[in-house]
Amino acid sequence: MSKTSAGRFFEDYSVGQVIDHAVPRTVSGGERALHHALYPARHALHSSDVFAQACGLPASPIDDLMAFHLVFGKTVPDISLNAVANLGYVEGRWHRPVWPGDTLRARSTVIGLKQNSNGKTGVVWVRSEGVNQHGQIVLDYVRWVMVRKRDADAPAPDTVVPELRGALDALDLVLPEGLDFTRYDFTLAGEPHRLRDYTVGEVIDHVDGVTVEEAEHMLATRLWQNTAKVHFDLTVRPEGRLIYGGHVISMARALSFNGLANAQMIVGLNGGAHANPCLAGDTIRAWSEVLDVAECDAPGVGAIRLRLVATKGGEPSTLRGEDGRYLPHVLLDLDYWALMPL
Amino acid sequence: MSKTSAGRFFEDYSVGQVIDHAVPRTVSGGERALHHALYPARHALHSSDVFAQACGLPASPIDDLMAFHLVFGKTVPDISLNAVANLGYVEGRWHRPVWPGDTLRARSTVIGLKQNSNGKTGVVWVRSEGVNQHGQIVLDYVRWVMVRKRDADAPAPDTVVPELRGALDALDLVLPEGLDFTRYDFTLAGEPHRLRDYTVGEVIDHVDGVTVEEAEHMLATRLWQNTAKVHFDLTVRPEGRLIYGGHVISMARALSFNGLANAQMIVGLNGGAHANPCLAGDTIRAWSEVLDVAECDAPGVGAIRLRLVATKGGEPSTLRGEDGRYLPHVLLDLDYWALMPL
Amino acid sequence: MSKTSAGRFFEDYSVGQVIDHAVPRTVSGGERALHHALYPARHALHSSDVFAQACGLPASPIDDLMAFHLVFGKTVPDISLNAVANLGYVEGRWHRPVWPGDTLRARSTVIGLKQNSNGKTGVVWVRSEGVNQHGQIVLDYVRWVMVRKRDADAPAPDTVVPELRGALDALDLVLPEGLDFTRYDFTLAGEPHRLRDYTVGEVIDHVDGVTVEEAEHMLATRLWQNTAKVHFDLTVRPEGRLIYGGHVISMARALSFNGLANAQMIVGLNGGAHANPCLAGDTIRAWSEVLDVAECDAPGVGAIRLRLVATKGGEPSTLRGEDGRYLPHVLLDLDYWALMPL
Repeated sequence: MSKTSAGRFFEDYSVGQVIDHAVPRTVSGGERALHHALYPARHALHSSDVFAQACGLPASPIDDLMAFHLVFGKTVPDISLNAVANLGYVEGRWHRPVWPGDTLRARSTVIGLKQNSNGKTGVVWVRSEGVNQHGQIVLDYVRWVMVRKRDADAPAPDTVVPELRGALDALDLVLPEGLDFTRYDFTLAGEPHRLRDYTVGEVIDHVDGVTVEEAEHMLATRLWQNTAKVHFDLTVRPEGRLIYGGHVISMARALSFNGLANAQMIVGLNGGAHANPCLAGDTIRAWSEVLDVAECDAPGVGAIRLRLVATKGGEPSTLRGEDGRYLPHVLLDLDYWALMPL
Repeated sequence: MSKTSAGRFFEDYSVGQVIDHAVPRTVSGGERALHHALYPARHALHSSDVFAQACGLPASPIDDLMAFHLVFGKTVPDISLNAVANLGYVEGRWHRPVWPGDTLRARSTVIGLKQNSNGKTGVVWVRSEGVNQHGQIVLDYVRWVMVRKRDADAPAPDTVVPELRGALDALDLVLPEGLDFTRYDFTLAGEPHRLRDYTVGEVIDHVDGVTVEEAEHMLATRLWQNTAKVHFDLTVRPEGRLIYGGHVISMARALSFNGLANAQMIVGLNGGAHANPCLAGDTIRAWSEVLDVAECDAPGVGAIRLRLVATKGGEPSTLRGEDGRYLPHVLLDLDYWALMPL
Repeated sequence: MSKTSAGRFFEDYSVGQVIDHAVPRTVSGGERALHHALYPARHALHSSDVFAQACGLPASPIDDLMAFHLVFGKTVPDISLNAVANLGYVEGRWHRPVWPGDTLRARSTVIGLKQNSNGKTGVVWVRSEGVNQHGQIVLDYVRWVMVRKRDADAPAPDTVVPELRGALDALDLVLPEGLDFTRYDFTLAGEPHRLRDYTVGEVIDHVDGVTVEEAEHMLATRLWQNTAKVHFDLTVRPEGRLIYGGHVISMARALSFNGLANAQMIVGLNGGAHANPCLAGDTIRAWSEVLDVAECDAPGVGAIRLRLVATKGGEPSTLRGEDGRYLPHVLLDLDYWALMPL
């Protein structure tokens, strides 16, 4: 019997099944330093303990997307090893910050199944959660993927398609305990713009670009213990290793500092599409569109809903062609909520 | 007089000589994070404080091979700066874990000398030790190298060839204080296989591959303060920088998670050969063969002796040609003991 | 109104103006580990807590140049975003060590202005300071840059050219509190040479070379939150990303261990020129010239003034051509003070 796992196939999932993912992880200042080395990350609340303390937190938490990637990476061997396609994610919420010294593990619950008409693949919906050493949920999100069947003759499961929301309401967002932006220092944060300075529909070009190197995206993807082979093994993709979509998200988010320096903490993920593959040598740029703004139930704190688009060149605000499909230069189209001083 | 050291030559060594190596090093969570960024490392005991505590340890120790590389790196300026060839290592033992906050230094004792018949080089055997801030040995190993003479007319020393064992016995292994695998969580560790599921002679193909980049192996080799110029300076090796053999060891060990997720801690090194040079662009793969299994004197703890082979392609289980020499695709042939739940 | 900053132009500066720079930063063992991964850094006092404690310090401080880069990086968006040229720095002093856990911020005071005769650019002199969480200055330096005018018709300011010293006197250097080299361990430090072994005029070739990769210099430059686009975006510099000058400084300083292992702490920066651009693929080498030596007011501590030259090949001691200009192989010409056992 082989000791190595071939991963789960479509017929291995059942609705209600709970999968505890392997390899818990303790994070430290080392992970934070690497985050700063890998991305042009400058949001002050994730850079400085003193700044975070002035915002009511005990210390500077680990970057929110890094927490997401750490949880996501743990799910890969159980959820997407035999995935034909990542179809989307939605209803992502950050429930509490991750601090240096915390240990994260992850589990997923299967919430939907639908065999495709070709009988060879099916769609699996899971709700994945990251849990800290106190058993507290730090974040959760729904993801759905198309997975191969091991045996095309295996019977189709009953179809269960979960009801999913298009986007979280601002009222659904969970605010970090103690967060208070009433003494927020805009000078140290880097920009003067508060929530009321942004208008729905406003588009912000984040100006800078980063040309991506192979070594960088592999360091990042391994840091999150995501070992999907397409990211590392050039013999399986001689045309270029496929860059983990999360690397593009974090790069675009870091670039968005320039114009959104005060969008400090990500608390909601409404959806996202990796529109086209990203390869080493691509120069990633980003722009954002303000989708919504709201007040929150914490002193001085507001929420801004943003579309974050990453491109590898081309006109900044053209996303789709006449056929409705993403144009080839679009890498990412993400919809998220962040917290910002009112 | 030149301020820079030309390193030791064969006639500078004498049996019984003790060399204290320079540059002690304090490790932290930063080194651990880099280890995770540089290798697809997922062994739970080195990833999670909580998991390590459930195994009876106070916290998650620094990766065992990283401790080895840190000690090895310190010996390079004194032992192998003028080495023509690394001939081997043997009798490596880990005596106690290295924790974040520990400071390591290294010393070597010359235990053998034999001038070669050409009169231009000789073989030097040393036993090297890593020592922590409490003066405790954390690991030791024997290594032998062929070193140039400065002056071919220098007299040959008396030949002393140390008696070395082919492999450590399981009884010789030192177990970390407190280690207890009776509450071991196989789900969090990632695989269900315990020691009794492995049979001597069993071969495990670790499936995944990683195509290596220049920036990565240089980051790793510098992290261990190993500054041998062949790893860094393309002008001395225009055909490609030679990748430090330890980088190949750590990469192969990390890849071996897939099939050996429960071989948690390395405690013995029986021998190893760097069969062929590894260069950037090579895709490293690995397979293991079970050489021996044994019970240990700690609750629920067993030991597994493994041959770990790294290749850059080719048939997984062919090691040598008809002439008995390693085939060109073989990078590493390592023999070690690891601890695993019974 | 655009939310992104176009940076300051020449007419935006006035003498006496104080600019508080954004993005404070808490450092940890993570930054130290990355420093060791990025450079062949082996100075014992920055590597080992135990060694640093034997020198009278509470722990091993963050590398002095890393502290400099962290402060410098914060000034970039306010000082040099529209710089045509970095003209120089001088009067740099380290006032106290930076420890893991410290939070650094930066501020600059404009101390000089001079419009160029073409009316399109001007020179701005600033004194920049790094400040820790206790409000203590950790380092300061003067830098001057040539900056574009936004509007060529804007009136010229009164010319103020600050009086700057060519080099700091040894008496001006600030010694870290408690520093004591009377129990200095030369074996652990790696070389036997004390201050009295060096003579003014002595030249030391540091022997080793490092061929630089794109991923490495980008990791380093981001780590210091320096986001100048010429370092990252290949579309704005198709001929090759320009490597941040600070990367060359830190690489050359680390290489200088070989011959200057006991020049432990940098406490003064007298001046520096980035003679020619450095690109990925260049092999950096270094040599030093002893410019001065002095005793200091701390037990066993002396100061050595060094010229540190980085090259990308060529004859080690030829700096300038017959026209007085730096030869094309010269990358860096730096003048600094370091502390060394007497």
